[in-house]
Amino acid sequence: MAKLVAMYGTPKDKAAFDRYYFATHVPLAKKIPKLRKYEVSQGVVSTPAGASNYHLVAVLDFASLADIQAAFASPEGQAAAGDIPNFADGGADLFFFETKEV
Amino acid sequence: MAKLVAMYGTPKDKAAFDRYYFATHVPLAKKIPKLRKYEVSQGVVSTPAGASNYHLVAVLDFASLADIQAAFASPEGQAAAGDIPNFADGGADLFFFETKEV
Repeated sequence: MAKLVAMYGTPKDKAAFDRYYFATHVPLAKKIPKLRKYEVSQGVVSTPAGASNYHLVAVLDFASLADIQAAFASPEGQAAAGDIPNFADGGADLFFFETKEV
Repeated sequence: MAKLVAMYGTPKDKAAFDRYYFATHVPLAKKIPKLRKYEVSQGVVSTPAGASNYHLVAVLDFASLADIQAAFASPEGQAAAGDIPNFADGGADLFFFETKEV
């Protein structure tokens, strides 16, 4: 299995971010080939010391790292990645990695 | 559902980190009450621009944010959290949040 984690810094207008994210970005990202599961944070993204600087975290599951790499290269993946600057004015940190259950 | 994401910065000695993490920390963390699933990254934690500054990412699934809060407060959660300074000399960023599937 493999995961793509997208962490969005606090935007200037949280309500506008949320509207755009759920109405426009999620439908685009859901078209990514071989995406198995797509979860997003609800409410505050916390740390043990209190609220984090992140407004939203998305966790996308794939079967393998190769599927994530193919997703990034696909037109649908390019469209979803290209959409990020349209709403993520607080920045976006993307990480991807193979996983194993322990 | 809810997730706890632990992101470990690159340690001084990666092999020593990995030995300790899998031999000592994972068994401690697996005792955390109501932990449903525990996945760890394998290999490089990448960003679209190349390798990240993180050596390992762990994603722990729980049924709810309340379960994560109870986990932190439990003796087993305290033991797992208290173990982090024993191996994470590259730092550890912990985030937790409620999730929904989209």
